[in-house]
Amino acid sequence: MQAGMSDEPMVPPGFAASLVEIGQRMDRCRWVPGSAGNFSARIDDERIAITRSGVHKGRLTDDDIIAVKYDGSAFDPGDRPSAETLLHCQIYQKFAGVGAVLHGHSVAATVLSMASDAGGIAFSNYEILKAFGGIRTHETEVILPVVDNDQDMPRLVARVEPLLEMGAPLGYLIRGHGIYAWGETVEHAFWRVEALEFLLACELERRRIK
Amino acid sequence: MQAGMSDEPMVPPGFAASLVEIGQRMDRCRWVPGSAGNFSARIDDERIAITRSGVHKGRLTDDDIIAVKYDGSAFDPGDRPSAETLLHCQIYQKFAGVGAVLHGHSVAATVLSMASDAGGIAFSNYEILKAFGGIRTHETEVILPVVDNDQDMPRLVARVEPLLEMGAPLGYLIRGHGIYAWGETVEHAFWRVEALEFLLACELERRRIK
Amino acid sequence: MQAGMSDEPMVPPGFAASLVEIGQRMDRCRWVPGSAGNFSARIDDERIAITRSGVHKGRLTDDDIIAVKYDGSAFDPGDRPSAETLLHCQIYQKFAGVGAVLHGHSVAATVLSMASDAGGIAFSNYEILKAFGGIRTHETEVILPVVDNDQDMPRLVARVEPLLEMGAPLGYLIRGHGIYAWGETVEHAFWRVEALEFLLACELERRRIK
Amino acid sequence: MQAGMSDEPMVPPGFAASLVEIGQRMDRCRWVPGSAGNFSARIDDERIAITRSGVHKGRLTDDDIIAVKYDGSAFDPGDRPSAETLLHCQIYQKFAGVGAVLHGHSVAATVLSMASDAGGIAFSNYEILKAFGGIRTHETEVILPVVDNDQDMPRLVARVEPLLEMGAPLGYLIRGHGIYAWGETVEHAFWRVEALEFLLACELERRRIK
Repeated sequence: MQAGMSDEPMVPPGFAASLVEIGQRMDRCRWVPGSAGNFSARIDDERIAITRSGVHKGRLTDDDIIAVKYDGSAFDPGDRPSAETLLHCQIYQKFAGVGAVLHGHSVAATVLSMASDAGGIAFSNYEILKAFGGIRTHETEVILPVVDNDQDMPRLVARVEPLLEMGAPLGYLIRGHGIYAWGETVEHAFWRVEALEFLLACELERRRIK
Repeated sequence: MQAGMSDEPMVPPGFAASLVEIGQRMDRCRWVPGSAGNFSARIDDERIAITRSGVHKGRLTDDDIIAVKYDGSAFDPGDRPSAETLLHCQIYQKFAGVGAVLHGHSVAATVLSMASDAGGIAFSNYEILKAFGGIRTHETEVILPVVDNDQDMPRLVARVEPLLEMGAPLGYLIRGHGIYAWGETVEHAFWRVEALEFLLACELERRRIK
Repeated sequence: MQAGMSDEPMVPPGFAASLVEIGQRMDRCRWVPGSAGNFSARIDDERIAITRSGVHKGRLTDDDIIAVKYDGSAFDPGDRPSAETLLHCQIYQKFAGVGAVLHGHSVAATVLSMASDAGGIAFSNYEILKAFGGIRTHETEVILPVVDNDQDMPRLVARVEPLLEMGAPLGYLIRGHGIYAWGETVEHAFWRVEALEFLLACELERRRIK
Repeated sequence: MQAGMSDEPMVPPGFAASLVEIGQRMDRCRWVPGSAGNFSARIDDERIAITRSGVHKGRLTDDDIIAVKYDGSAFDPGDRPSAETLLHCQIYQKFAGVGAVLHGHSVAATVLSMASDAGGIAFSNYEILKAFGGIRTHETEVILPVVDNDQDMPRLVARVEPLLEMGAPLGYLIRGHGIYAWGETVEHAFWRVEALEFLLACELERRRIK
């Protein structure tokens, strides 16, 4: 709790600014309708900066970025973190190299995740797959996992756990809900979301012309 | 009429500014083509601020926001309110908590409302349904009512009446015409429109890949 | 030619500014890819302001707006008017009330005009049809004429002539080419284009879900 | 290497600025998801300005534009050019009049190039075909070549070579990868990309309503 007692604000300004700005970019892509979506960044080994619940993610102010502990609780008891804060904490705890997590609701991710009850969506022969760490060729099949949605957050966290155990996937979809993706920085996490949404948009088109 | 006799303008600047700005956001979403759409906000128990008829709703000026009474008539006899002003008044009279009403014309709302003569469009298993007050889970079916269009405004108002009697729905569609949605504030009404348009866009995609 | 001999520029600044700005709006809608599209405004009974050929219509400068006579020839022999200038002149000569003509290339107009060899696209039961002068109800069928494309401009003008003789239609499409629409002012012509493109986008969606 | 020894920077500011700005325009069109895409411009007979690898092409800074030789190697050994630099060099070496090359990843180009194993996509009866040099009518069939993707860059270059030998095509697609197009200037290359992407978007729509 030392951070809290020091003079520095619980959320350093740079962290707040980068989450506010990424919200504007997600909004321009139409991925955060209404008050949907949430974004976070790892501050240090005790603090995560995350978007407040119930605000439009394309019009955030620094004040909408709050600090939570790794157990998902807010440092300031007056703050209400997003209901999905635990999904962010889970990723930070699993992957030491992850510095930011982004969650959005796109039409393509929502529709494709609801189009079947499959556990994942397979992508192959896309050059852009190379954008995902460790993949050196487009001649590969990559699976974006899909988990069923659940309002019981601990149960949803448990459902996601084995996916992360398998090593860092590209990200994952929650059925009828949206995408979770992450990266070393907020900027890199956004690139990951953009690349995955591009693949989902392509898959949606391919299913129409088939 | 006291408001009119006082020094304050019939439409307080804050109300005009928020309707002008929401028009710019609706326009960026492509939901107000030509001079389509209209927006309003409740000023007090005798005045409603509403967009003037026959102007582009993405390029409003404060002067395009006029004051009307709850019977839909303009305070300034020189002002021509939107033909659909009565649909706005009806919502304010029915729901004391509503502070703003937005009406737009999107491709998805227009096409889906014309795709069948059903009385509503059902949404289920979408996480975003939780954005609608009082809904705690995605495991629910929600109906967005659709009423047939009518150029006789009192008759259209009568057609909408039973929907509102049933309690506050999410909003409603007029067939081949567009969406009406509302909220406590202009900002909240926009979130409602964004969430409903997201659901309509998803439904349109789902009908294509089926 | 008095205008040319006077001190005022051949294209008054206000006319140039409104065509430059409408180009930016058409571009944001993605209706002027590459150097496609052309826009004009009636200056007086001898001059029409029109976009120069071979420039990007979303990045015009005042210098790209040139003055032509009603026979389509440029006042400044060094200026190269758009190849389609005669289609603009024809509309101004036919309809005294028309102050501006806009031509763009949208995906929907191009695809629908090529989808059949019909002489028009019918729209019915759309509320937005009321946006077209003289139409008081959505319960009507309106035809947007489609003429075959032709690189012989006088021949294309002759093909359009009977459509205009029939009285002012909504505008027209040239097959595989794009839309022509007009209005009393540049702003009103843009509303007409927006409303027609909205109808075309709806029709394209309806043909997919049928 | 004289350029390198002179006082002028390896990449003259004007070249950097135009590539930074075109990246912003490509990004607004959603053609450079993640860190995809690369752009270049011919500086002189020994230098090509090209985007650095592993940056977001919609948010470039002048520092992200580096100088390479016609063999694809960077002048500054610390610079890492895009893996596809050789595809740019090949075009400059083949066509003396080409001043800029743009590569992007659009949904339409990716999906259509993967929809069949054909060696090209044919366009006919589109007015916009006239935008491509030397074409005087829409009554023509134009082929946009498609080559199979390959992570072996020299092999991919060899696959593209015969297309360029055939004379300057419109540009070409790499299957599952994206578009390459060029022009005398960065601006003209963008017009070419916009026109080709418009045609690809139209073809994608036509395949849906067929």
